Amino acid sequence: MSSNAKVHSLSDLANILDATLIGDGDREIHGLSDLRRAGPADISFLSSSKYADSLAKTRAAAVVLREGDARNYSGDKLVVDDPYASYASLTAIFDVRQKRETGIHASAVVHPHAKLGDNVAIGPNCVISADVEIADGTELYPGVFVGENTRIGANCLIFANVSVYHGVHIGSDVIIHANTTIGSDGFGFAPVSGAWRKIHQLGGVIIGNRVEIGANTAIDRGALGDTIVEDDVIIDNQVHLAHNVVVGSGSAIAGCVGVAGSTEFGKGCQLGGACSVGGHLKIADNTIFSGATVVTRGNREADVFASAAPIQDVKSWRKNSVRYRQLDELFARVKKLEKDADK
Amino acid sequence: MSSNAKVHSLSDLANILDATLIGDGDREIHGLSDLRRAGPADISFLSSSKYADSLAKTRAAAVVLREGDARNYSGDKLVVDDPYASYASLTAIFDVRQKRETGIHASAVVHPHAKLGDNVAIGPNCVISADVEIADGTELYPGVFVGENTRIGANCLIFANVSVYHGVHIGSDVIIHANTTIGSDGFGFAPVSGAWRKIHQLGGVIIGNRVEIGANTAIDRGALGDTIVEDDVIIDNQVHLAHNVVVGSGSAIAGCVGVAGSTEFGKGCQLGGACSVGGHLKIADNTIFSGATVVTRGNREADVFASAAPIQDVKSWRKNSVRYRQLDELFARVKKLEKDADK
Amino acid sequence: MSSNAKVHSLSDLANILDATLIGDGDREIHGLSDLRRAGPADISFLSSSKYADSLAKTRAAAVVLREGDARNYSGDKLVVDDPYASYASLTAIFDVRQKRETGIHASAVVHPHAKLGDNVAIGPNCVISADVEIADGTELYPGVFVGENTRIGANCLIFANVSVYHGVHIGSDVIIHANTTIGSDGFGFAPVSGAWRKIHQLGGVIIGNRVEIGANTAIDRGALGDTIVEDDVIIDNQVHLAHNVVVGSGSAIAGCVGVAGSTEFGKGCQLGGACSVGGHLKIADNTIFSGATVVTRGNREADVFASAAPIQDVKSWRKNSVRYRQLDELFARVKKLEKDADK
Repeated sequence: MSSNAKVHSLSDLANILDATLIGDGDREIHGLSDLRRAGPADISFLSSSKYADSLAKTRAAAVVLREGDARNYSGDKLVVDDPYASYASLTAIFDVRQKRETGIHASAVVHPHAKLGDNVAIGPNCVISADVEIADGTELYPGVFVGENTRIGANCLIFANVSVYHGVHIGSDVIIHANTTIGSDGFGFAPVSGAWRKIHQLGGVIIGNRVEIGANTAIDRGALGDTIVEDDVIIDNQVHLAHNVVVGSGSAIAGCVGVAGSTEFGKGCQLGGACSVGGHLKIADNTIFSGATVVTRGNREADVFASAAPIQDVKSWRKNSVRYRQLDELFARVKKLEKDADK
Repeated sequence: MSSNAKVHSLSDLANILDATLIGDGDREIHGLSDLRRAGPADISFLSSSKYADSLAKTRAAAVVLREGDARNYSGDKLVVDDPYASYASLTAIFDVRQKRETGIHASAVVHPHAKLGDNVAIGPNCVISADVEIADGTELYPGVFVGENTRIGANCLIFANVSVYHGVHIGSDVIIHANTTIGSDGFGFAPVSGAWRKIHQLGGVIIGNRVEIGANTAIDRGALGDTIVEDDVIIDNQVHLAHNVVVGSGSAIAGCVGVAGSTEFGKGCQLGGACSVGGHLKIADNTIFSGATVVTRGNREADVFASAAPIQDVKSWRKNSVRYRQLDELFARVKKLEKDADK
Repeated sequence: MSSNAKVHSLSDLANILDATLIGDGDREIHGLSDLRRAGPADISFLSSSKYADSLAKTRAAAVVLREGDARNYSGDKLVVDDPYASYASLTAIFDVRQKRETGIHASAVVHPHAKLGDNVAIGPNCVISADVEIADGTELYPGVFVGENTRIGANCLIFANVSVYHGVHIGSDVIIHANTTIGSDGFGFAPVSGAWRKIHQLGGVIIGNRVEIGANTAIDRGALGDTIVEDDVIIDNQVHLAHNVVVGSGSAIAGCVGVAGSTEFGKGCQLGGACSVGGHLKIADNTIFSGATVVTRGNREADVFASAAPIQDVKSWRKNSVRYRQLDELFARVKKLEKDADK
């Protein structure tokens, strides 16, 4: 789909990937594709031996693979220890996204008290408020709003129509996808004589370095302290992080996850899609939650957890659902049978 | 609520709906409402005989109904085969949305290498990037961003603050509601020595013709190939489609659904609200998932599936939840009882 | 994190909170924090005796607390009946958000037929359509779109990139967070010969007074009548309210909740995070749904409901999930055992 293809020789790519080249180093590579779709100008990769069938049939110009798989492929190849990691590196080389033009677009509204670094790109209709700092090389797509006193580090990429409130600190090498909100008010209200009195949210949001945040995600500011997303965290689309949540470094949060207030995840946690996590929980380092888990309690040691009820054809589901509501009663009946049998 | 009411004679409406008019064709119809709320200048409709009570009491100027129901209504009426389809047609006639003024608003930023068709309406603060093509009659509300090399077909309607990334292809007669994102990066990362290395997403998104996409929805671009939404698909609000998902033509996806990467739906599938669908699944044509189903496996034949645990008062829920965790043990106990009884 | 600290004497704060001051009324208070984080210029609060440990150790300049707790604290203090309500009041005083400059920013596009009240603040790149009315003191952050014939009351706060469609009525003292959509089309389609015919959504949205709506939330317009959010309702992030939903006054809807069409909540309902509510249900006043409840039926009397299956370690979960699918069969087996035992 790209119209701005880049061309690299196979030996260049071998250098970049620190790979052993077997074949024609002068071969020109125009793109990257999977084994099945690759054309004769594409490089491809074999990340698992289970795709060996596709390897046999591929039309790719060259394939990145492990030494153990290399003997099964007679074409030009790059031999590496971790083909999937090499694939990730290749995607950076063949990426179709165009860097935005540096400078401040004429239609952007930048407060005179904002400080912008070198080579920043502030797209059309961006609004940068007072006392904002944006470090070198950061790109803002059109329509991005940045509130007062917010700091954004170097080499960040903020996509269109992202809204960042006041008092947010974002590290370097952070990517935030379109229509995402950072720093909205946490959901805090005191019930006072039958109405809700707003608890204004005085905390901020701190986003570490090398964090990626998907599209249409919302991360609330803290009530008094901050909401914190540590370094190297990856967060997908449609995620909701409530006030004062802490996400430990290296954690991964898949799409549609919601986390209630003040829950703290240790380092290296993984949440499958659509997990729903209660508030005020402490989750141990390296905990894994399967997709759609409803997390109602914390844990002290790494483990894998799940809660989703099993999918069934709708007839069975109806029958078993009725029975589920009678489970406790069934246990009593079984206990009675056991007692009677014991007599 | 409309202030721009349109007036049609009942005979005009009969023509448009291809209906049999029984009554006064000159009667002026100013609006459309349901039977209970309709006033004496409104047309209404009876889509199911179970609303016959409302028919008896309605103050509507005229009613669209089936032949079988017509005998029970002595007022002016339009007789049709499918009143619900006629109702849909009437909503187009009485819609309160105003078409946007054609032309490019002075505040829009349109790249000189973008190609715009006839009678397009590019609203204030829209940003149209290089090599974008937008076909005839398409309307963009304010604040829409369109990335490089993206194509949008004819007679589309893109609401405010929608963000469409580069390399996206959108068909004709497509509606996309506000704050939706099309073409954000899929959630792809290779774990490399304890950190996440980004897999840049080189694929695009292909949206067919006559597709409607709700508000605050996010559809990611493909990793290498494309994410595909075929013709005549309808998608509601707050939906997340991950990279390389394929949604077969005519499918319907209700609100808050999340679909993980590379899952492929056949044609005519229906997903109730808040379904959560795992990755790399193949779903057969015409499969139906009840609301809140957690889909963990594919299927080869059309069927109806569900998984949500039943709602209970909270006391019963607590007891039965404890028991659910002891289910496997209970089966063992029952087996033992059966064995003992068998002796 | 604030750089615009405000200073109040303790006696001033006592006045504002209608509190009994015990201690040095001239003491200068620069900020508000929780007991653990408070520094010597901060005021803090004790909302529950269970945090008494933190009270003993706090470095706070002064503490707001109940009479019963006051005897255990020798420092400067403000004695009140409801410290949590006082805390909410204090957050308004020490809020770090800066009021937006009143007036219409030069880059905003305001239709000549729009009516703006006194002291409104229309931020950069806002677009205000024809026949819109915005009452006194309302602030719009950058990038807000307001469609034709929409009315927004006094002293509202609409954050960046919010999209409000045509024909929406918003009351006074309403807060809407960034990237939220109000008035998008409900998900209405008539199946006609294998395709979906759009039912244009002719209704509007009515939002009452003192409503707060979170970030990245979407509230659809009604099909014929209106979608209604009554006074004093609070709604969190990532919520989806479908067409013709009614939310009774004083209700609270936590993050990631989805509500299908035409469901009506009574007054004072509370929905925990990630609840998923079916369509056409009537929910009684003061009903409470625990987090992640799948609501499939209405109710006539206030109660607390839940449905989420319990979280388990993944091994137990796998075993019990298999058993869940055999539940109905198990009931039959137990019944047989009982019958046999009865012989």
